[in-house]
Amino acid sequence: MADSLNCDLKSLSPLQLFERVTEQGEKVRALKAGKAPKDEIDAAVRMLLSLKLSYKTTTGQDYKAGLPPEDLVLINNGTTKEEDEDLVDPWNVQTSNAKGVDYDKLIVRFGSSKIDTDLINRIERATGQKPHHFLRRGIFFSHRDMDQVLDAYENKKSFYLYTGRGPSSQAMHVGHLIPFMFTKWLQEVFDVPLVIQLTDDEKYLWKDMTVEKAYEYAKENAKDIIACGFDINKTFIFSDLDYLGASPGFYKNIVKVQKHVTFNQVKGIFGFTDSDCIGKISFPAIQAAPSFSSSFPQIFNGKENIQCLIPCAIDQDPYFRMTRDVAPRIGQPKPALLHSVFFPALQGAQTKMSASDPNSSIFLTDTPKQIKTKINKHAFSGGRDTIEEHRKYGGNCDVDVSFMYLTFFLEDDDRLEQLKQAYTSGELLTGELKKVLIETMQPLVAAHQERRKQVTDEIVKQFMTPRKLTFEY
Amino acid sequence: MADSLNCDLKSLSPLQLFERVTEQGEKVRALKAGKAPKDEIDAAVRMLLSLKLSYKTTTGQDYKAGLPPEDLVLINNGTTKEEDEDLVDPWNVQTSNAKGVDYDKLIVRFGSSKIDTDLINRIERATGQKPHHFLRRGIFFSHRDMDQVLDAYENKKSFYLYTGRGPSSQAMHVGHLIPFMFTKWLQEVFDVPLVIQLTDDEKYLWKDMTVEKAYEYAKENAKDIIACGFDINKTFIFSDLDYLGASPGFYKNIVKVQKHVTFNQVKGIFGFTDSDCIGKISFPAIQAAPSFSSSFPQIFNGKENIQCLIPCAIDQDPYFRMTRDVAPRIGQPKPALLHSVFFPALQGAQTKMSASDPNSSIFLTDTPKQIKTKINKHAFSGGRDTIEEHRKYGGNCDVDVSFMYLTFFLEDDDRLEQLKQAYTSGELLTGELKKVLIETMQPLVAAHQERRKQVTDEIVKQFMTPRKLTFEY
Repeated sequence: MADSLNCDLKSLSPLQLFERVTEQGEKVRALKAGKAPKDEIDAAVRMLLSLKLSYKTTTGQDYKAGLPPEDLVLINNGTTKEEDEDLVDPWNVQTSNAKGVDYDKLIVRFGSSKIDTDLINRIERATGQKPHHFLRRGIFFSHRDMDQVLDAYENKKSFYLYTGRGPSSQAMHVGHLIPFMFTKWLQEVFDVPLVIQLTDDEKYLWKDMTVEKAYEYAKENAKDIIACGFDINKTFIFSDLDYLGASPGFYKNIVKVQKHVTFNQVKGIFGFTDSDCIGKISFPAIQAAPSFSSSFPQIFNGKENIQCLIPCAIDQDPYFRMTRDVAPRIGQPKPALLHSVFFPALQGAQTKMSASDPNSSIFLTDTPKQIKTKINKHAFSGGRDTIEEHRKYGGNCDVDVSFMYLTFFLEDDDRLEQLKQAYTSGELLTGELKKVLIETMQPLVAAHQERRKQVTDEIVKQFMTPRKLTFEY
Repeated sequence: MADSLNCDLKSLSPLQLFERVTEQGEKVRALKAGKAPKDEIDAAVRMLLSLKLSYKTTTGQDYKAGLPPEDLVLINNGTTKEEDEDLVDPWNVQTSNAKGVDYDKLIVRFGSSKIDTDLINRIERATGQKPHHFLRRGIFFSHRDMDQVLDAYENKKSFYLYTGRGPSSQAMHVGHLIPFMFTKWLQEVFDVPLVIQLTDDEKYLWKDMTVEKAYEYAKENAKDIIACGFDINKTFIFSDLDYLGASPGFYKNIVKVQKHVTFNQVKGIFGFTDSDCIGKISFPAIQAAPSFSSSFPQIFNGKENIQCLIPCAIDQDPYFRMTRDVAPRIGQPKPALLHSVFFPALQGAQTKMSASDPNSSIFLTDTPKQIKTKINKHAFSGGRDTIEEHRKYGGNCDVDVSFMYLTFFLEDDDRLEQLKQAYTSGELLTGELKKVLIETMQPLVAAHQERRKQVTDEIVKQFMTPRKLTFEY
């Protein structure tokens, strides 16, 4: 999938986008005036809205008919962003490209390494397991030092996994599951312990939310995470608000990181300003500290300097670039990383899903009916405007959100390839592709809900209790 | 003492100081050329060094013969400081006045209230005890909301005390005892619990020191603090590095403060810059949080919003001005404060004592001989240059460090008044005054050392264990 997602269709310039929006607006008006079939009008309107969104994403301004954009330079974090560059930081993901962020360019910009076939083959050899489809399909596409982790692993030096989540609302969407599904697989095939940080303090600092509410969300989110099937003997889930006051080792690492990072640095990395609260400014150290095993003296029985591997979406990389910069200066090993692409919003791959817009995502609490309606109504289609055109020219999998979702959730490689061929050739219609997605997501979400029901408060408490984990080192 | 310390002798301008240093230098040269008695030369040299120190303090430059100072504007925390203003923040205390900081001006600048006779009388009525000589002599000279604390206390609403120390080295000097001696008295006469913060994290952040060393100093300093005689049933001593990782209530208050203070604010209050590490920038919240009783759920048995009273040296006020600003916005009562003057260095009242210069202070580890030598050799004298002049014009208690120390440590009011009269009239010579101070300090330090010997590691551990304190509320 990486190849198809990242191929070289050039993003449009602001002016080109302006012209496309204008054209599409005229087309919608013409269809309406001509009393065209409702389906056709709806499809044209959806395309118009999507183009307007792209326009706004690219220019930072709403589209205004007759007012073409001025020359634009998007500013991000104090550095000038080139016109066709994607915006990626822990709080924003924006691209003007309907196929999503250009990940090959991101690897160059961030200075990470591509997960190539060689590395995937090494993982297969080291674990004796078929690589997860997230690896095979380029969903986890970039890494830092994964080869070193494998070198050590092959020499019987183990590691631990660290991932996390900012619990911003009770409901998680299917995109939130991606790092956890992959992490669960890593935990199984490498047989290693895992720590999961719930940054409720971050959410308190960034949102209009009480400390109590943030902590409540953390515990609710823990249930969804546990429902992914983590091994209770090898997994520690913690809320910052809770664990920071329960582990001297954790705070000591935080203060060590805080001593070695200046305001100038976090300003450059995260775009903080003088008007930001001191909590935000010092927070990056709190996300950094779990990268060091001494933050968890209970888990590792006091063993220090254990290698850490962090599977996460690429937008979290700035935290860990900072962490890797600090690590040697405080006598700690640099954490290794595995980066995933973003999970696209139903409306298109220009931005990642947002828990705050119920229609941008399929939520883990959605009913089968809601899932069906959302996909049919909101999933951006790469199909043609009319059945005739579609049969003739075929659909575009590169921008079709239903197809993108299937690359995440349909495990059967052959089936996925058949669907791609059929859709691209025009044999498969948009409605038929959506039906496959609906039939994939409904049982997946229902099964999750069933597992989540089994997760009692008592089980959450067990996962969140600092304790020794099973660990061969 | 406040009156005598704070009377209106005008500080000299940089140019006047320059002239005084030049004159004194010529005097020393003349005495040496004339083969004057060693005592006389030594006294003149001491005066010269003291004048040079004042010059450097005022101008920020070393005295250079023949090079008068340019017009100088001292910059502090981004604001222009007037030429005759004292510099007072948590890391610097500087004044050009040999009698020390002008505390009346400081009350106006800081917006606090003077501890006047009415307030002292109220404390006497509320406690039924003679006010401590630190109150009677203006050593604790300023307050915030102490009247409200007394209002509540008289209505059977109690409070708790909070003070602290930054453990920068193993050895404490007698000046460090001032807030603790006074706090102990407050604990006794009001019968209230006390929390003592050891900011080992601050010292780690500010100094070239490991986390382990800072924590070691904290535990060593705790012994000297315990030796002051605090009630183990009513006193909790904590290291930040330790307790922050042992109390979720504490971290929750820290993050609440951190959300409500911006970098702009700490820049204005503490003079931080963009090159400062994020640990320093967020530290003020850690000193603020113990002002809120919910930081100590164990101590108060879960009771919240208990009034806090903070006895401290006035240089710590910026932390608590910030705290009082934040308190209502996070639903907490503002802490009340009692401010002390600074304890002068042996060399003079222009700066406070420094633990890093062994000759600037009498240390709690000094032998009787060391105490004698230090006082005789280094205590700045307000006496005249010759015995004849001294008999004729008398000494100046306002600048005499031995006399200042006696106001801190000689509890007998009548004796102190006699000494003042005799020294001012010229009846008592500098050597005789120093002898009184030596005889006061030697047994005081010896007794402290004796009590400190009794403080075992086990006792320190008990004081530093979070637990319920005896508290009538």
